Amino acid sequence: MNYLTLKPVNEAVELFRGFAALDAERVRVESAVGRVLAEDVASPEAVPAFDRATMDGYAVRARDTHGASESMPAYLKVVGRVPMGAVFGRAIGSEEAAEIGTGGAMPEGADAVVMVEYTRRAGGDVVEVVKAGAAGDSLIRRGEDIAEGGVMLRAGHALRVQDVGALAAVGIREVSVRRRPLVAILSTGNELVATDATPGPGQVRDINSLCLARQVEALGGIATIAGIARDDERELEAKLVKCAESADVVLLSGGSSVGARDLTGTVFEKVGATIVLHGISIAPGKPTILATWHGKPIVGMPGYPVSSMVVFWIFGAALLGALEGRPKAADPMARAFPTRVEGRLVRNVASKPGREDYVRVKVAPNGDVEPILLGTATLSTLMRADGLVRVPRELEGLAAGTAVNVFRF
Amino acid sequence: MNYLTLKPVNEAVELFRGFAALDAERVRVESAVGRVLAEDVASPEAVPAFDRATMDGYAVRARDTHGASESMPAYLKVVGRVPMGAVFGRAIGSEEAAEIGTGGAMPEGADAVVMVEYTRRAGGDVVEVVKAGAAGDSLIRRGEDIAEGGVMLRAGHALRVQDVGALAAVGIREVSVRRRPLVAILSTGNELVATDATPGPGQVRDINSLCLARQVEALGGIATIAGIARDDERELEAKLVKCAESADVVLLSGGSSVGARDLTGTVFEKVGATIVLHGISIAPGKPTILATWHGKPIVGMPGYPVSSMVVFWIFGAALLGALEGRPKAADPMARAFPTRVEGRLVRNVASKPGREDYVRVKVAPNGDVEPILLGTATLSTLMRADGLVRVPRELEGLAAGTAVNVFRF
Repeated sequence: MNYLTLKPVNEAVELFRGFAALDAERVRVESAVGRVLAEDVASPEAVPAFDRATMDGYAVRARDTHGASESMPAYLKVVGRVPMGAVFGRAIGSEEAAEIGTGGAMPEGADAVVMVEYTRRAGGDVVEVVKAGAAGDSLIRRGEDIAEGGVMLRAGHALRVQDVGALAAVGIREVSVRRRPLVAILSTGNELVATDATPGPGQVRDINSLCLARQVEALGGIATIAGIARDDERELEAKLVKCAESADVVLLSGGSSVGARDLTGTVFEKVGATIVLHGISIAPGKPTILATWHGKPIVGMPGYPVSSMVVFWIFGAALLGALEGRPKAADPMARAFPTRVEGRLVRNVASKPGREDYVRVKVAPNGDVEPILLGTATLSTLMRADGLVRVPRELEGLAAGTAVNVFRF
Repeated sequence: MNYLTLKPVNEAVELFRGFAALDAERVRVESAVGRVLAEDVASPEAVPAFDRATMDGYAVRARDTHGASESMPAYLKVVGRVPMGAVFGRAIGSEEAAEIGTGGAMPEGADAVVMVEYTRRAGGDVVEVVKAGAAGDSLIRRGEDIAEGGVMLRAGHALRVQDVGALAAVGIREVSVRRRPLVAILSTGNELVATDATPGPGQVRDINSLCLARQVEALGGIATIAGIARDDERELEAKLVKCAESADVVLLSGGSSVGARDLTGTVFEKVGATIVLHGISIAPGKPTILATWHGKPIVGMPGYPVSSMVVFWIFGAALLGALEGRPKAADPMARAFPTRVEGRLVRNVASKPGREDYVRVKVAPNGDVEPILLGTATLSTLMRADGLVRVPRELEGLAAGTAVNVFRF
């Protein structure tokens, strides 16, 4: 494979995020954080449901305070105290006032709250108001926060804590959201054993399945580990079809053996899948394959754990985002890498023109960014790294001293 | 409360993150992503466990290729193919070679892999090597990735996917991590009803409990919603003690009623708690209280949902991070707000000197940052906002046109 004939990363990302959103399901609002709305949500209720005091003080008719000042207070008759969580039993009449606490329901007849700071209790049931108020002072009107019938949140919005809080506030118990993608993860390689097995001579533990499952979960998907297939076309075909039938996405992680990667492409074709892309001009991650089987995405992931993880962060995240119905972000890396840090390379990084590199780096507190220049065969490099630095496709590398933006893990 | 006598935000953060880490528990590595190691972890095995080919080609004795070139190839006898996941049955002798795939176990006697690109199969069992190789070419030595007995990860490290993968690779099944903080959430306010109840006149749904629980979960804690207490000292005392006995942290969310906030302080003292701070020079969130009860943190949260959420993002995150044993970050906001975006204020924002403000803002794709200047009583402002902008304590506001860093939700 020549890097110049492979699919550029940005085009590959578009292919991965070209899939339609999954169908919708209804979930309880308290379980809906992070989920993507499948339809607009309108409020069935007004918030607040009643005119509500926003300060402690006295509920009054504003006109009774007109002209009031320190030297010439208005004298109002206190007719009681508004109970919290209930309504005041009577209307406020002319030159009357009721004590009210923040959050209390405004009594009939009152149209303003005079803050307690602007009052003096003159003794008995009389309060002196020393500042003129206006209608609407220190209260929030029914529906002023959220209007009854108005659209609160739009389809495609990923719900945050405050959104779920607002939905609960208006009495919504369930919302329609996109289904979480079901991702089946299958590994292939004669040298692989399960992570809880003890490898024999020449064998290694299959950590790709474990890592991919955690990556899928971190982005809101539901992962199923389908086990390990031998490097055998028949066995792999059967397991692949079983996965594809029961999941929304299949990630087929190649063993690192010579035939495994070719095997993936062959088996994809044998089961009748359509190859969407075969090879990306990226390092690590070049041998990635995207195909569709009855419209479902099936992905041939590279065999080295380092490569597999990087490919998932870039392309897997784009795919899952599309299936969840997220709007296409201007920056497709934003979901897997919400944090960026700025720094300066302390060493040269070489790359090949036409290839986009994602270099593992360590970031020192002073901003020094040290590339880890070992091969993708060494898993520990990703463990020692704090993030990735992108070397753009058109460059042959980055020189020591270059200011870089690190995609922080 | 005067803002100048309240605790500054940075000092308050230090108090919240001054608590000791919880005890440790053992968890399976596949469930350990996001958890904080309670002890250093050394590797019980070497990775790779055997010298391993990193390219497809031929396993050879390097000295047999010395002097080889296109015009004068070395001729080696192919004695077989190394099976994946097993060992080759015999040693490689002088002028012998064995086919090997990436990831294959190097046979005895061989000390280099000649990449397939530098070979020609001459017919029969002879391979021509057209490039001289050196010992160690295209292979990774036993223990070169992860050394047996070496410390892989240090106590205090928050495990990422790649760390968990590396632990699984060396056969570690369980790790010792800090316990997830158990957080009991109690609300108080006569006006509150549960979110699944229908509020009567003057009543509102208790969304603080729901929101705080989701915020706790988002940061790795385990939330228990303990319900709603009346604004009654006896009832609140009993419920508070019950929560404090069964959890690591209690968040007591004040109703917005007049007495509720004073009630929290009174009840904290009545149960024998030590007040650590009472009031922070922040908006929203001023009436926050931090106390300890038998060494456990108990927190009086502000009543308005907007204030409660902001206080949790800043101070709750600091507290949970300390209990999980995370190292103190230089930037205590980093955990709740991993993403920052730069922009420019399109309108003036006023603040009070001595008070640190967190202003809800909308961020346009072109970087325009529009402050939402409504009060904390309006929950919908947080729903409409994309993030928060900090107005530093020493300023009286920020002028339109100021470049700002938005803490993005």
